[in-house]
Amino acid sequence: MDDRVRRHAELLVDHCLEVTADDDVLVIGSQNATPLVTALYGVLGERGATPMGQLHDERARRAYQKAVDPENVSTSAPRLAAMEAADAVVLISSTTNPYETMGVSDAVKTEIDDAHRPILDARLDNRWVITVHPTAGGAYRARMGTDAYRSFVYDAVDVDWEHQRRRQQRVADIIDAGETIRIQCGRTDLTMSIADRTALNDDATRNMPGGEVATSPVVESVEGTAQFDLPFFYRGDRIEDVTLTFEDGVVVDCAAGDAQDAMDRLLERDAGARRLGELGIGMNRGIDRATTNTLFDEKMAGTVHLALGFGFTECLPDDQKPNQSDIHTDMLIDLRSDSLLTIDGDPIIEDGNFWFEGE
Amino acid sequence: MDDRVRRHAELLVDHCLEVTADDDVLVIGSQNATPLVTALYGVLGERGATPMGQLHDERARRAYQKAVDPENVSTSAPRLAAMEAADAVVLISSTTNPYETMGVSDAVKTEIDDAHRPILDARLDNRWVITVHPTAGGAYRARMGTDAYRSFVYDAVDVDWEHQRRRQQRVADIIDAGETIRIQCGRTDLTMSIADRTALNDDATRNMPGGEVATSPVVESVEGTAQFDLPFFYRGDRIEDVTLTFEDGVVVDCAAGDAQDAMDRLLERDAGARRLGELGIGMNRGIDRATTNTLFDEKMAGTVHLALGFGFTECLPDDQKPNQSDIHTDMLIDLRSDSLLTIDGDPIIEDGNFWFEGE
Repeated sequence: MDDRVRRHAELLVDHCLEVTADDDVLVIGSQNATPLVTALYGVLGERGATPMGQLHDERARRAYQKAVDPENVSTSAPRLAAMEAADAVVLISSTTNPYETMGVSDAVKTEIDDAHRPILDARLDNRWVITVHPTAGGAYRARMGTDAYRSFVYDAVDVDWEHQRRRQQRVADIIDAGETIRIQCGRTDLTMSIADRTALNDDATRNMPGGEVATSPVVESVEGTAQFDLPFFYRGDRIEDVTLTFEDGVVVDCAAGDAQDAMDRLLERDAGARRLGELGIGMNRGIDRATTNTLFDEKMAGTVHLALGFGFTECLPDDQKPNQSDIHTDMLIDLRSDSLLTIDGDPIIEDGNFWFEGE
Repeated sequence: MDDRVRRHAELLVDHCLEVTADDDVLVIGSQNATPLVTALYGVLGERGATPMGQLHDERARRAYQKAVDPENVSTSAPRLAAMEAADAVVLISSTTNPYETMGVSDAVKTEIDDAHRPILDARLDNRWVITVHPTAGGAYRARMGTDAYRSFVYDAVDVDWEHQRRRQQRVADIIDAGETIRIQCGRTDLTMSIADRTALNDDATRNMPGGEVATSPVVESVEGTAQFDLPFFYRGDRIEDVTLTFEDGVVVDCAAGDAQDAMDRLLERDAGARRLGELGIGMNRGIDRATTNTLFDEKMAGTVHLALGFGFTECLPDDQKPNQSDIHTDMLIDLRSDSLLTIDGDPIIEDGNFWFEGE
């Protein structure tokens, strides 16, 4: 076995989930993730924990989705029961083709998302982590050779997370104390209030790799224009170069070129889909390029991401609720050149660099 | 997709499990079974049922088994919960290497079997079927080329099961009415009582392919010698050419050559492991060769199999209990030449042929 796969498994089990001998651990992945699944079974066995493997195969899912009548979609009772009975969950993304569900009806996708909601809620009540196993398909998506992509993934995963946490805390402290964020870059000029908001410091416990600082802005305070220049996938469609205009926190204009239909469907999903749930700041210098995979791209130092859809209760005072929605779709703004992000007027990122990186 | 994979999936969903739109169906297999899993997801979607995929990977299992301390083995709560929540279960065997668990300690294997027992019991309370997806590894095990092996499997699966059921019922009726079975072939000369026993007619509802007639003999009545000449795998060991001697229903002598250790461990598992739970008669003429896979070999016309371990409650009068054990290990006697199987003195199989095949 590649030592890096073993190391990846150890980080997931020990750093992310702090697994002990009493734990039942659900390992969810496709057949492409077999090397990591096998390594996880070994590490979980060493810790005395009990693994269960759940198959999440994109082609099988497509076969189901193409065949099923929307009115017959329902919550999988065994999946819900397994999720509720588990103590900890590893979700392994090892997509080989992100277009796989293209052409499946939106009605079916929405019914499936709705039916999945209780399972998602049950997962959020467990310890959980999402990660990637690098495959040839993932390398293709990243526009890299497979070996180079594998090195890219493991370099981003196997870092000193305590050092990274301390580095990120400098930005988190400023968000905790700050009032207003302004982002300027190209056509982007966006402001939002973060008054009373606290920051999440992502040191790779729920996402591996981690490396971002995030909060949920005051929903109705978002004003201005944001240009999202890094591509992402939504329900089997590739979406690139989207410009959104916000007034009083609501998207009032969306220009998305070839992806206009897909973006319109996303925005019309529910009332919360036109509002922001998250502002995140990527701070992981180990991720040095975009790979069309949000789990990595959103951590890249020199990018920020805004998520349409539901926000984070943990970031708000007890008497306030975050934005409510069934979706949470991250979209990226590339600040790596000619950019400025300020909090209360103080530069945090300038031309892609954090203020302290020049110290 | 190979039309035969699709047809296999339809038979599992419709013939074996009679799936309806309300059903939650658990599909358990390894990554090698992906084509059949994908076909099943499509057919289940068409029927309005909801699939859940559970990963059963032999290399991952070995990694866990080699790593875990026996005292930390416990029943997987999520697996038990999923099994209890499911309405129907498809177990797909797609072993690529039956030696995979060789070298894992017997203590761990026994703890795992014990921990699995509640999950097994929960499955037996559901509708369930066990089948095979043909792989290159399965072909190797069968000593066939992969394409030829695939044809062998699908020829055994896609048959007229109603016709097969009627054919088998002729033997089942004789078992229902009969008192004593005697089997003679080579060193084998074995008698047992089937008084008050009824037969199971396997028309491929719980095994796909099916094709046997079985019962649980009167435990203490088994007398004589049985030579098992077809090889099988037990816990990662290949076992071949075993001779067992029964007195008053108990194995009093076992000669197993290279597999002596493995057979001794099997017999010492518990008190019921030295006693017979099943006598089965293979009647599937579509299976024309042994492939070191019990699911197929035991259905082959011209073979009988005896299982050490637990018997079938359904075959006994209400006031009697079958043999009790944690194991159920099928072993085959090849009657395809120079053989005689009689019930109450009447020939049922002679030199490999059923009496009615000469009519």
